[in-house]
Amino acid sequence: MSERIVVVGFGPVAARLVEELVPAVRSGLVQLLVVGQETEAAYNRVMVAELGVGRTTADALAMADMDGLAAAGVEVRLGVTVKRIDRARQEVVLSDGTRPGYDRLVFATGSRPVIPNLRGINPDPAHPVLPLGVTALRDLRDAAQLRAAVTTGKRVIVLGGGVLGLEIALAAAEEGARTTVVHNGSFPLGRNIDRGGGAVLAANLRSAGIRMVGNARSTAVEHNGPDGAFSALVLSDGSRIEGDLLVLSCGVRPRIELAEGCGLPAATGILVDHRLRTYHEPHMFAIGDCAEVRCADVDCLECPDAPGPSGLVGPGWRQAEWLAEYLVLLAEGGQDAADAHVPLPQEKPGVVVLKARGINLAVAGDNAAEPWDEEVLTVGVSEGKPRRQVAQWADPEHGRYVKMTTRGGALEGLVTVGMPRTAAELVMLFERGSELPADRSLLLRLDGPDQLDSPASQDDPQRTVCRCAGVSGASIEEAVLEGCSSIPEVSKATRAGTGCGGCHSDIKALIEKHFQGVAA
Amino acid sequence: MSERIVVVGFGPVAARLVEELVPAVRSGLVQLLVVGQETEAAYNRVMVAELGVGRTTADALAMADMDGLAAAGVEVRLGVTVKRIDRARQEVVLSDGTRPGYDRLVFATGSRPVIPNLRGINPDPAHPVLPLGVTALRDLRDAAQLRAAVTTGKRVIVLGGGVLGLEIALAAAEEGARTTVVHNGSFPLGRNIDRGGGAVLAANLRSAGIRMVGNARSTAVEHNGPDGAFSALVLSDGSRIEGDLLVLSCGVRPRIELAEGCGLPAATGILVDHRLRTYHEPHMFAIGDCAEVRCADVDCLECPDAPGPSGLVGPGWRQAEWLAEYLVLLAEGGQDAADAHVPLPQEKPGVVVLKARGINLAVAGDNAAEPWDEEVLTVGVSEGKPRRQVAQWADPEHGRYVKMTTRGGALEGLVTVGMPRTAAELVMLFERGSELPADRSLLLRLDGPDQLDSPASQDDPQRTVCRCAGVSGASIEEAVLEGCSSIPEVSKATRAGTGCGGCHSDIKALIEKHFQGVAA
Repeated sequence: MSERIVVVGFGPVAARLVEELVPAVRSGLVQLLVVGQETEAAYNRVMVAELGVGRTTADALAMADMDGLAAAGVEVRLGVTVKRIDRARQEVVLSDGTRPGYDRLVFATGSRPVIPNLRGINPDPAHPVLPLGVTALRDLRDAAQLRAAVTTGKRVIVLGGGVLGLEIALAAAEEGARTTVVHNGSFPLGRNIDRGGGAVLAANLRSAGIRMVGNARSTAVEHNGPDGAFSALVLSDGSRIEGDLLVLSCGVRPRIELAEGCGLPAATGILVDHRLRTYHEPHMFAIGDCAEVRCADVDCLECPDAPGPSGLVGPGWRQAEWLAEYLVLLAEGGQDAADAHVPLPQEKPGVVVLKARGINLAVAGDNAAEPWDEEVLTVGVSEGKPRRQVAQWADPEHGRYVKMTTRGGALEGLVTVGMPRTAAELVMLFERGSELPADRSLLLRLDGPDQLDSPASQDDPQRTVCRCAGVSGASIEEAVLEGCSSIPEVSKATRAGTGCGGCHSDIKALIEKHFQGVAA
Repeated sequence: MSERIVVVGFGPVAARLVEELVPAVRSGLVQLLVVGQETEAAYNRVMVAELGVGRTTADALAMADMDGLAAAGVEVRLGVTVKRIDRARQEVVLSDGTRPGYDRLVFATGSRPVIPNLRGINPDPAHPVLPLGVTALRDLRDAAQLRAAVTTGKRVIVLGGGVLGLEIALAAAEEGARTTVVHNGSFPLGRNIDRGGGAVLAANLRSAGIRMVGNARSTAVEHNGPDGAFSALVLSDGSRIEGDLLVLSCGVRPRIELAEGCGLPAATGILVDHRLRTYHEPHMFAIGDCAEVRCADVDCLECPDAPGPSGLVGPGWRQAEWLAEYLVLLAEGGQDAADAHVPLPQEKPGVVVLKARGINLAVAGDNAAEPWDEEVLTVGVSEGKPRRQVAQWADPEHGRYVKMTTRGGALEGLVTVGMPRTAAELVMLFERGSELPADRSLLLRLDGPDQLDSPASQDDPQRTVCRCAGVSGASIEEAVLEGCSSIPEVSKATRAGTGCGGCHSDIKALIEKHFQGVAA
């Protein structure tokens, strides 16, 4: 009486779910079918830009042990599309002509890049085929296209000033491409950062050799390159930015059409409750980029303020792990046993970090208030709540900026640029809701010239080093003590460093610290 | 053959000139006549606000030893007005009916308060008689009027957000008056400070109990108080600010009508060259508030950028001292001997400090640039000059603000609010043109919580403690070593503390430091 589970999608989040279900498959508790649209098995999509500039290999990005899965009895079908879902018969209708049945179905369909509405690019939104020389840098083929441009020193234009766009531009510029970022608004990262931080960040990006074109509205692309390839991006003021490769980095949109096609409600993502169950169909689930946790209970205190899908791998992994436990409980003990399982805790507000050599940036929470705002300048309590307070340090000459927005002494928002140690401390204070020292300028001392030789605040072993996988410094140190002496070994033992890769330098520092101690 | 010198005016600057000339009078080298319009002998006008709130006495403000002057042979006529000057005959026509002749004449006529053009106040600009309950706080009678309001806890309105207006308001509020400041623009001190510093300063003033009314255009005063006294200030939006005393603090204007009346050229002040000589009449001079040093030489490198009269007592005193030397040389050796005397060096740009308990502020130089300005955000050199760079710390919750504007590492401008030790260090760096540490945040450490017990940076004995009289810490320490144990004693020995009084706390600290050392 094993349960039939179908997972639609085989990206990093699906891969984690599958991995966690392997023991149940092996024991015969569940039968597992995974349907992946790409011909490749799951790989770390977050690192595609790194692959594109030649800093990592496709092998290192692999996230699924296909032989292991096969040996365990997991069925994986690659290059196969789910055409539709027949809810009445509980079957998935596949492009390979089969109609496997399911007891439980998990949507892990992820998201697709937003393709801006430009003259010269108008692909079918569901099946985009972009013109030669234009890429959205989403899959392994896109990475190869960027790789070719970077190694030949071509001109790369990144359209979009978000985190991913900036990371791509920084990596491409550092590896030798002549790089331009074109973005809306007067500063990059406009959805996350404040004006001051944005201005200092833009200056740092220019210092890194990137041409920044702000307040730009793109209207068209030109195809006058060899073989009709991309040759220029046209802006609304008529100016043209010439280049050899256009990388579109305009955000992603959850892939919800399959769920909507079978009548499930969706907002930005497929709507699920705190047990990741779709509305009306408690045996269907959604996780990762395609899922939006927002329950139907009008009295729920969490959901009114819940953000949409985060687009980050960490929350998806936590959903995958939780759902694996829930599915196993369902299969073992039925609905009552599973319902006794603690619902998935709400994600804390995320911290945005820029993964780039030479530019350190952290942004979290609400940073809209400025030190000159009327509210901020008034001391005391407003409507029973302590007022918001803002402290700010700006030193653009040295590429540095900090803004700390507090209420009752604890951070509501933070922005740091170019101050890695201050950033690490503030992120920790933000995540713990701890009170800041009354004199906020003390925090700047962490990045003072007398601190340059010491590593970023790693004194507290409990601090989270890998945010994606949620791994503490203590766990990594333990793995190092047990013999791990390289990042891949630590990653294998702890999963630290398997997500965005932003913590690789911290892991490296912990390994070096251990071996220095041993040598001394 | 002694020279006849007439000094027109008997304020603090004239008093210094007269004092310096006493030996020459005593020796018979010069005959000296001083004509003062007020019936009181010279007193320290800068301290009139302090007198008005009862923090000092009229005796302490006296600046002239009348008996000593009489004994030396100096003729002082008080309560006498100069009606006009007869240049052809070299005579001054006085209100007492006499017409004394002169060989040299010195204008030390000072300045008068600007009386704003409000309905209900329209006095003759040359002889203002203000309505009951309205004062410009310029002389000893004005001080008595403020004193009465403060001691009875009356409502005081200060019109004007300049340095003097704020000092009056702070002192009045602290001594018990309910105080309102009405000013133009969105923040006080608008002529000196930048927006950020102004906003933090305004918040500090509110915290000190002062009601701040910004962006205000006054149009009229109402006289519905007892005996038709002032009762309210009316703003252009029709709102009324009720009060018992209106203190006008709208700046001063040099008194130039006497010089203009005898045909001497004037701009803001009476125009003089680097030897303080009026244009065309090398035997007439002007010093202090009424003088504007701007020579007629088109090739002069200093004068195109010369500011107008500073309104500060320090530069006036330096002019008085220099002119006394020059006049003695003229009397002793004639024009050739005097011309060999080094001309008066140009005043360095001034440092604005707010003399107030509890609020520390320093402003100097050009503070218009913001950290987000295009020029500031761009690294490198512009047209052969290093670019301007700005570092800024804002912590309005704790009333703190610093802006450092540098070029090639040296300060072009500084603003500090609520950071006395950082202020002292930056003022020193500004005056010496020294290079700042690359990491500007190091300067904030001077006001860190670990520094609270140490006095404001007094390590460098060569730093100027009294800016008005130009006295160094070393000179004060020497006076203390020689037995001075109070501020008046130090003032008498060194002249430190005889001007605006802003250095009194520093002098006190130096005295205490000495006696602690002796006790230990």
